[in-house]
Amino acid sequence: MVLNRVNSPEDLKALSLEELLQLAEEIRSEIIRVTAQNGGHLASSLGAVELILALHRVFESPRDRLLFDVGHQAYAHKLVTGRKDRFHTLRQEGGLSGFTKVSESEHDAITVGHASTSLAHALGMTIARDLRGESYHVVAVIGDGALTGGMALAALNKIGELGKRMLIVLNDNEMSISENVGALNKYFKELQIRKWVQDAEKLGRQILEHISPKLFGLVDRAKEAAKLLLHQENPFYAWGLRYVGPVDGHDLKGLVHTLEHLKELDGPTLLHVVTQKGKGYKVAEADPIYWHGPPGFNPERPEKVAKGYSWSQAFGDAVTELAHLEPRLFVLTPAMREGSGLVRYSLEHPERYLDVGICEDVAVTTAAGMALRGLKPIVAIYSTFLQRAYDQAIHDVAIENLPVVFAIDRAGIVGADGATHHGVFDIAYLRTVPNFQIAAPKDALELRAMLRKALEVGGPVAIRYPRDNVERAPEGVWPEIEWGRWEVLKEGTEAYILAFGKTLRYALEAAGNDPRVGVVNARFLKPLDKEMLRSLARYKLLTVEDHQGMGGFGSAVLEALNEMGSRPEVRILALPDRFFEHGTIPSLHRQAGIDAEGIRKALREMGLHPAYERA
Amino acid sequence: MVLNRVNSPEDLKALSLEELLQLAEEIRSEIIRVTAQNGGHLASSLGAVELILALHRVFESPRDRLLFDVGHQAYAHKLVTGRKDRFHTLRQEGGLSGFTKVSESEHDAITVGHASTSLAHALGMTIARDLRGESYHVVAVIGDGALTGGMALAALNKIGELGKRMLIVLNDNEMSISENVGALNKYFKELQIRKWVQDAEKLGRQILEHISPKLFGLVDRAKEAAKLLLHQENPFYAWGLRYVGPVDGHDLKGLVHTLEHLKELDGPTLLHVVTQKGKGYKVAEADPIYWHGPPGFNPERPEKVAKGYSWSQAFGDAVTELAHLEPRLFVLTPAMREGSGLVRYSLEHPERYLDVGICEDVAVTTAAGMALRGLKPIVAIYSTFLQRAYDQAIHDVAIENLPVVFAIDRAGIVGADGATHHGVFDIAYLRTVPNFQIAAPKDALELRAMLRKALEVGGPVAIRYPRDNVERAPEGVWPEIEWGRWEVLKEGTEAYILAFGKTLRYALEAAGNDPRVGVVNARFLKPLDKEMLRSLARYKLLTVEDHQGMGGFGSAVLEALNEMGSRPEVRILALPDRFFEHGTIPSLHRQAGIDAEGIRKALREMGLHPAYERA
Ligand SMILES: [Mg+2]
Ligand SMILES: [Mg+2]
Repeated sequence: MVLNRVNSPEDLKALSLEELLQLAEEIRSEIIRVTAQNGGHLASSLGAVELILALHRVFESPRDRLLFDVGHQAYAHKLVTGRKDRFHTLRQEGGLSGFTKVSESEHDAITVGHASTSLAHALGMTIARDLRGESYHVVAVIGDGALTGGMALAALNKIGELGKRMLIVLNDNEMSISENVGALNKYFKELQIRKWVQDAEKLGRQILEHISPKLFGLVDRAKEAAKLLLHQENPFYAWGLRYVGPVDGHDLKGLVHTLEHLKELDGPTLLHVVTQKGKGYKVAEADPIYWHGPPGFNPERPEKVAKGYSWSQAFGDAVTELAHLEPRLFVLTPAMREGSGLVRYSLEHPERYLDVGICEDVAVTTAAGMALRGLKPIVAIYSTFLQRAYDQAIHDVAIENLPVVFAIDRAGIVGADGATHHGVFDIAYLRTVPNFQIAAPKDALELRAMLRKALEVGGPVAIRYPRDNVERAPEGVWPEIEWGRWEVLKEGTEAYILAFGKTLRYALEAAGNDPRVGVVNARFLKPLDKEMLRSLARYKLLTVEDHQGMGGFGSAVLEALNEMGSRPEVRILALPDRFFEHGTIPSLHRQAGIDAEGIRKALREMGLHPAYERA
Repeated sequence: MVLNRVNSPEDLKALSLEELLQLAEEIRSEIIRVTAQNGGHLASSLGAVELILALHRVFESPRDRLLFDVGHQAYAHKLVTGRKDRFHTLRQEGGLSGFTKVSESEHDAITVGHASTSLAHALGMTIARDLRGESYHVVAVIGDGALTGGMALAALNKIGELGKRMLIVLNDNEMSISENVGALNKYFKELQIRKWVQDAEKLGRQILEHISPKLFGLVDRAKEAAKLLLHQENPFYAWGLRYVGPVDGHDLKGLVHTLEHLKELDGPTLLHVVTQKGKGYKVAEADPIYWHGPPGFNPERPEKVAKGYSWSQAFGDAVTELAHLEPRLFVLTPAMREGSGLVRYSLEHPERYLDVGICEDVAVTTAAGMALRGLKPIVAIYSTFLQRAYDQAIHDVAIENLPVVFAIDRAGIVGADGATHHGVFDIAYLRTVPNFQIAAPKDALELRAMLRKALEVGGPVAIRYPRDNVERAPEGVWPEIEWGRWEVLKEGTEAYILAFGKTLRYALEAAGNDPRVGVVNARFLKPLDKEMLRSLARYKLLTVEDHQGMGGFGSAVLEALNEMGSRPEVRILALPDRFFEHGTIPSLHRQAGIDAEGIRKALREMGLHPAYERA
C-alpha cells in the first residue's frame, strides 16, 4: 500500500507518478470502505481525489493554505494529512468530522459545512498574508454550485478588484469533459498557464489603462479583459480574474503540470477543473444524487437503502397534496430538493416549484415578491441555512407581515453533520422578530394541519421539524387545528412538562404513568398559549427543547410568566451554551440532558422522584 | 406649477415634453425644499428625477410594478404618485417614509431600506405574474453599488437562467457620461433597443443551442452570448441578460424613447443608465458624500452642518489610535466608511482598512479568514446590517471561537430611517450563539476600554452602541475595565434599575435622588455579571433596554435568576413585539415606554412612587 507510506503531504512529493496513481486508487477504496460503514459524502469525495492529490503534490500544506468550500469533498485530503489511522472514525462521535475543521488538523484551513464561504475566507487570508509580509499560497477549491452563491460572487468581485495572488479551483462536476480535448484547445490551455502570457496580459492592461479612463468597474473590466491578448470570451475576465481551463480533473499528471505553472503566476487565477461525481465507483457515477450522502451500505453489493419515512418526506407529501387544493401555493428551495423531500412535489407541480440554487437569501426574498403578487409561497429550508436569510426574513417578509411559510427542516440537533449543521438557534432568532409565528408539530398529521392552517392565517409562519423519521400520515386527511392552542397530552397533579416536536416523546417516556406529572404539547412557540400557561402556573413546570437555552422556548415561558406575575417553579431543559460536535442524535441529546433520562433527573431534582425510588 | 396638475402617474402621459422637463425642475426644487427642512436622501433622489419621470411616463403604475432598490432614491416617485401634499411630512413621525413602503402607497411595489433585494423581489413577481396569467411589467431600479451585493448577483444569475420578461435599470452614478456620446455609439444604442435585433438574437441562440450541448451554465452562456450578433463584450450577456447602454440618465427624451422600445422586448433586459448624484444642485453635485443624507440645511445657502460628535466618530477615533498600539488590528466595513466614522481611520491606516462593498456576509467571513491568519479584525457594521451576516457570524466566527470584534453601530431605535433600520434584534440573535460575548458601553471612554480589552480577551465580541451623539473622550486614554463586571452607578435600598448604553441616562434621570432606587450599568450582556445579579436578587429589579423584549436582555436576566433559583420581582422594559415606524428617537422611546417617564411609571407600578406623590 502506498497509502501506508503517506503520513503527511510531504510524503507525496517523493512518490513517482505511478505510485501517485496507485495512491488515488487506494484512497478511493478507503473512502468507499469507510463511507459504507459510517455513511458520508461519497460521490463528491470520490470526484476530488486526483485534484486533492495534485494540490498536495504541488503546494506545501500546512504552510500553503488549502481551503475546501463546504468541506465535504475533502476525504482524500484527510487521508493524506496524517489522519488515515483515524479515518474509520469519520462522522462518528469523537471521531473525524465530515468536513474540514480548523481544530481537527493544522492542514484544515477553514472550519466549514455551509457553502460559498471559501472565497471570502481566502480574500481575508491573502490580505493577512501580504500585510504580515508572508508569502504562502492560498488555494480555494469551490464547486460550481457553491460558486453561484451570492457571497461567493460578491467575494469574487472584490478578489478581482484587489488582485491579490490566490488560486481558485472551480471544481465543476456538472460539465462533461469530452468536448474539450481537441488539440487546439490543448495548445491554448498550455498558453494560458505560461508566465510570459501573464506578462503580456499585464502590458496589455497597462496600455489600456492609459488610453481608457476608468468606467464603471464591471463593464470596464469586461471590456479591458475582452481586449486582452487571449481574447477569451469568459465571464471571469469581467471579474478581473485570470481564467484557465477547463482541464480534466482526473488527469493527475496534467493537473500537477498545470498547477506547477499556475503557482508561479501573480494575481488571482481561476482554474476550471472538470470532475465527475462518484468517479471510480460505478453506482455513484450512475446516480450521484443518491450517492451524494448515502447512509451505510455494502461496498461489494452497493444498494440503495430505504431510509424510512422522514419528516422531510412527510412535508413533501403534504405540500404535494396541498398544492392541488390551493392553486396559489408555490414551493421554493435553495438547492435542497432531495434533502427537503421535494422530489415528488417538483414532478407533480413543476410550474409551482423553484430551486434558486445555493442562495437562501434569494429564496426568501423571491418568496416575498411572490407573496406581494398574490401567491402563497412556502420556503423549504433547513434551520441552519435559514440563518443565511435572516435579514430577508425580517426586512422583506416580517415588516409587511407577508404570508410566507417557512418549512424549517433539520431543526434541532442533526447528528453526524455536526456543529455547522445543528439547527438550534431558530426559535431565538425568529421569535424576537415581530409578526413571526412559530409552530412545531408532534407528528406528520399535525404537520399537515399546521401547513394548511398556516396558508390561511397569513403573515410569516415558521413550522419547525427535526431530522428524523416519522410515522406516515394518511393521504387526504387534513385535521383541524386550533391555531395557537397547546394540547394537554397527559394530566398531572403536581407538575407539567412543556415540550414540543421531538422532545415530546422524551417527555411522555419520562412521565410514564406517574399521576403527578402531566405533559403538554406546547406546539405553538410564538405566540405562546398564554391562557393555558396561566392555568398551568399553579404547577411546577419543566420546559424541554431541542434548541439553545438562551433565548429559546424556556426563556419565552419565563417571559410570559413574569409578565402575568406568576412565579411557579420553572426548570428549563435545553442545549447548554456551547457548540456540539457530531455524534448520534440520541447521544447528543443525552449529553445535553434533554432526553427522557435528563427529564427524569430534572423531575427528581424538582422533588418528583419516580415511584420506585419513593418506595 | 406643472406638479400641481400631477395627481397620479396617469397625468404624466398628458404632458408635453416641455412640461415634463419643467416638472423635473419643480420636483428638484421640492426635494431640496423638503430635505432642507427634514433631512433626507438628497443626492441620490436628485440623481433619479428624470429616470423616475421617464419610467412613470412609459409604464403604468400601479398595474406595472416599479421597484426601487434600497428605496431612498424614490422621492420623485413619491411626488408623482399622489403623495405631493404629504411630501413635507417626509421622514417625520406619522408622515411619509424615507423609503418605498408597500403599506404607504399602491405605487410602492416593495418595502425596502436595505440594498440588493430588488432583483429577487422582481424574480418572484415575474414568476407570480406569469403563473397567474397576468401581463404587467416588472421594472427594478438598482444602483451600481447595490448590484455588487451578493444576493443581487445571485438573483441576476437566476433571472438570466429563467429568462422571464423584466426590465432591470442599472442606475449607475459612479460612471461619467461624457465619453459615450459619439455618433457610432449612438447608432449601436439605437440598434440595441430594436425588436428585430431581439428576434435575430433569439435565432442565433436557437442555432447555438442546437449545435452546442449544455456546458457549465455560466461559461456556456458567456460563450453563447459572446457569439450573438451584436458581439457585445459585456458581462451581463454572460448572465443571460440583454444589455443596453450606457445611456444618459438625465436625457428625459432619450430615456422615454429607449424605455418605450424596451417595453416591447421579451426576456430580461438590463438598461445601463448613467446618472449624476445630486444632479441640479451644485453643492450636492460637488460633494455627493456629504449630501447623500444631510440633516436639515438652508436651501438658499446650503452649508455643511457640524452634526456633533457621534458614537460612530468615537469608535473611529478609538480604532485609529488603537491601530497604532496594535499592529495586527484591521478594520472592515461593508460600504459604510462615512456612516461608521472610519474616514480618519481609512486615511491613517489605509493598508489595514478594507471596504468590501455592500456585502455584509463577505465582510464577516473575510474577517474570519484574517483572524485565522494572525490578524485582529474589527468588523464595523450597523446592527440592522449584521442581520445579513448572521450565519457567517455563527458558522465562520463563533464555531471556532475566532477573535473577531463586531463594532455594532446604530444599535437600538434609529429614528427617521424607520422599521427597516432599527437595530433592535442583535442581543437576541447573538446571545443565543455560543462563544459570543456582548457588551454595551455607557460613554466613549468605556467604548475605548471595551475595544482595547476585546482585542485581548479573544473570541467573538460584539460591542453595541446607538445612533446618537456622545461626549468626546480624551485621546490617549485607555482606562482598564474589569471584563464581565457590571458597575453600580447609584445605590438603592429597595430596587435596582439594570440598564446599559443609551437607556442608562433614562434610568439615572428616573431614579433621580430617590434613595430607594439604585442604578446599575449592566454593560456586559453576555455573559451577565451573575455575581452581581445574585447580590441584587434581594431587591426589586427593573431592566431597561433599547431592544425587543422577546429574547433580549430582560429575558437573559430572567433566565439567570431562574437558574440561580432566585425569584425577585422583575419588571422588563423593552420594545413591544411590533415594528416601529420612523419618528424621532425620543418619541419612539416614549411610545415604547423605555424612557425616563416609562421607567418612572414602571417604578410606580412596583410600589416605588416618587417622593412628591408619597407626600
Ligand atoms: Mg457541483
Ligand atoms: Mg452608486
